Amino acid sequence: MRINADRLLARLARLSEIGSTPEGGVTRLALSADDIAARALVLSWAEKRGFAGSRDAAGNIFLTRPGDAPERLPVMTGSHLDTQRNGGNLDGIYGVVAGLEVLETFEDQGVCTQSPLRLAIWNNEEGVRFSPVTMGSAVWSGKLGLEALQHQADRDGTTLAQALAQDRLGFANLAEAPLGEDFAHYVELHIEQGPVLEGLGMPLGAVTGIQGVRQFTVEAIGRAAHAGTTPPAMRQDAFLAALALHRQLAALIRDAGENILLTVGRFELSPGTPNTVPSIAAFSIDLRCNDAALLEVAGNAILALSGHEVERCAVHIAELIHSSPVTFDPAIIASIEAAAATEGLAIARLPSGATHDAVNTARLGPTGMIFVPSRGGISHNPAEWTDPVQLAAGCQVLARTLLDLDSTEDARP
Amino acid sequence: MRINADRLLARLARLSEIGSTPEGGVTRLALSADDIAARALVLSWAEKRGFAGSRDAAGNIFLTRPGDAPERLPVMTGSHLDTQRNGGNLDGIYGVVAGLEVLETFEDQGVCTQSPLRLAIWNNEEGVRFSPVTMGSAVWSGKLGLEALQHQADRDGTTLAQALAQDRLGFANLAEAPLGEDFAHYVELHIEQGPVLEGLGMPLGAVTGIQGVRQFTVEAIGRAAHAGTTPPAMRQDAFLAALALHRQLAALIRDAGENILLTVGRFELSPGTPNTVPSIAAFSIDLRCNDAALLEVAGNAILALSGHEVERCAVHIAELIHSSPVTFDPAIIASIEAAAATEGLAIARLPSGATHDAVNTARLGPTGMIFVPSRGGISHNPAEWTDPVQLAAGCQVLARTLLDLDSTEDARP
Repeated sequence: MRINADRLLARLARLSEIGSTPEGGVTRLALSADDIAARALVLSWAEKRGFAGSRDAAGNIFLTRPGDAPERLPVMTGSHLDTQRNGGNLDGIYGVVAGLEVLETFEDQGVCTQSPLRLAIWNNEEGVRFSPVTMGSAVWSGKLGLEALQHQADRDGTTLAQALAQDRLGFANLAEAPLGEDFAHYVELHIEQGPVLEGLGMPLGAVTGIQGVRQFTVEAIGRAAHAGTTPPAMRQDAFLAALALHRQLAALIRDAGENILLTVGRFELSPGTPNTVPSIAAFSIDLRCNDAALLEVAGNAILALSGHEVERCAVHIAELIHSSPVTFDPAIIASIEAAAATEGLAIARLPSGATHDAVNTARLGPTGMIFVPSRGGISHNPAEWTDPVQLAAGCQVLARTLLDLDSTEDARP
Repeated sequence: MRINADRLLARLARLSEIGSTPEGGVTRLALSADDIAARALVLSWAEKRGFAGSRDAAGNIFLTRPGDAPERLPVMTGSHLDTQRNGGNLDGIYGVVAGLEVLETFEDQGVCTQSPLRLAIWNNEEGVRFSPVTMGSAVWSGKLGLEALQHQADRDGTTLAQALAQDRLGFANLAEAPLGEDFAHYVELHIEQGPVLEGLGMPLGAVTGIQGVRQFTVEAIGRAAHAGTTPPAMRQDAFLAALALHRQLAALIRDAGENILLTVGRFELSPGTPNTVPSIAAFSIDLRCNDAALLEVAGNAILALSGHEVERCAVHIAELIHSSPVTFDPAIIASIEAAAATEGLAIARLPSGATHDAVNTARLGPTGMIFVPSRGGISHNPAEWTDPVQLAAGCQVLARTLLDLDSTEDARP
């Protein structure tokens, strides 16, 4: 059994055209016209091979190749096709295209599985247009309720409910899938998006688990005033308050230790004109840590600053995402390592710094992930790149792992 | 001769309805539908009294009441009807409504002037939708060329050229006015937008001049990266670079002395998502000073940081506005003080912290300004407010000053 590397790479290239940016990246926000087009294209490839498609209320799409024992629980793989703004061409997309490649390889080569083999295209993993990240798999797993999310609007005022209804029209021919089905195993293939494998010189990684993440929005509320006429002592400058607040937060995190990462990726001032002292500063805090206790303590210390006053401005802090570190299934890690060995490929164990949909599937059943290296550790960037030889090897090991897991007893009904 | 305070206040209230915001402020960006509606309303009031209207290529509108000696240069007043986003109801608007009130009062009471009396409604004083501030009067005065500005686009992609063409359609009945006519005197009435008059307990101010202003855009260019996977040592975090840069700039300005004001009113990160290390941080610097030499030195020190590297990010700094301090005409200041004395009102001399269209008229002829107090010094804010008694008094002193200046010899051809 050998996957078709040329088909895999050609399809990655074809998908990179949908929402492409001048910098060579791609902007394909969840449920946008481009995202609908990308998913429709993957569906058209699947339909040519007779793989049945279905779609659930959260916008997740599933493609299934039947097994010889239809009563068995499915073996699953999956990832996402949505991207960051001007993001890379592999983040998520690789896992979807490789998953379809496994189904087609088995079809091409008459490989029969006992369990049905199911590919999930998770909706809105990136959380750019609608919050939070990994929305589709989180709703599917029961971690989040869809109802509470429906009313949020994107920059143009379109609500999630409206975008999902529009998306549903685009896939009217698909059967309705339930949320949160049982499964035997879930294995997700992804680029590392970090520098560890490249640093080790290893072509593959067996992922041990996913870092915890807590995300907050921080607001400092002052008073708008004329920049030319208001003396410093009379200002309630939300920008200066935000700077002071960031200094406090950064010091808190520094004190918490080296194993915790803080990122400010969004920062905005209102009303946002050069000659007005800003009344509101709003920014995001992204906190990542492999240590559950440390993440709790540091995140709670940030939340404790809410309600205080800084530089004569009121401070409000709200938590958007609170996801504890996840440890992957030891049997799946062992299966991935065995598959790599069968293929004669070296493999290293490493934790994932990024969150993935696998963090949610792990709530419902045995889950694991395979990584391939990212050149320079770069991701969420048009320069995101992985050697095509490594992309093919990752797909081959995914195919081998899914076959191996199918042969275990775990999927018996 | 006594102005009609009720009419003045009713018209201010009427104009506050066009572009009103939930907070009680107004958003009426230059050349927007609301700005066209506001100027059309003022024109309709003027047309009922037979005041001739004209409009120049920069979108400035002029309303003229003829004098008995048509060969004399006009005596002018003026201000603007555009606002900040969620700005106040008096900034600019007061000067326009009061100017029209003077023309109508003279008409009502049969007051004849030698010179024509001309009210200018300057276009785009605020510089929010299109840069820079005081655009209309700057082009009129010859300080800026219109051609170089025409291609800039607002947030929705509409260019200034398109917006001016649309605006021209809205005022098709107006005669074409030339740019930069000669005039005998220009006196602008405005709210102070600062706390000085209130602090002194004075109802009126004779403005001695206008603070200099320099505005810059500062950009730090790093590299987008995944927030969960990229170790601090590998990041080129544009946000951290911007913070370091702001610390340097603030220290520079602190060292330059107490009489210089620095404001950051705009700050944005790209791509602007919580889980991506930002590749670009862009922010505005607004620098104000009454001391021309100090403003030169401090602004040049800021510009000198351009091209350097900060926190592994490239720094680009561009200057958008460079306006030296202006000193007003001593004869006009004396005329304003005499008018206040005639009306039995106390008046203080003070400089203007804010820029006004008068900064540009001062390039072409004798210019002065009258201030009324701003409660709490608040402006560019829905809470902007001046006691109606003071609004009426300011208008009365404007009328008296314009009459007094008309009686001088300066306007003889």
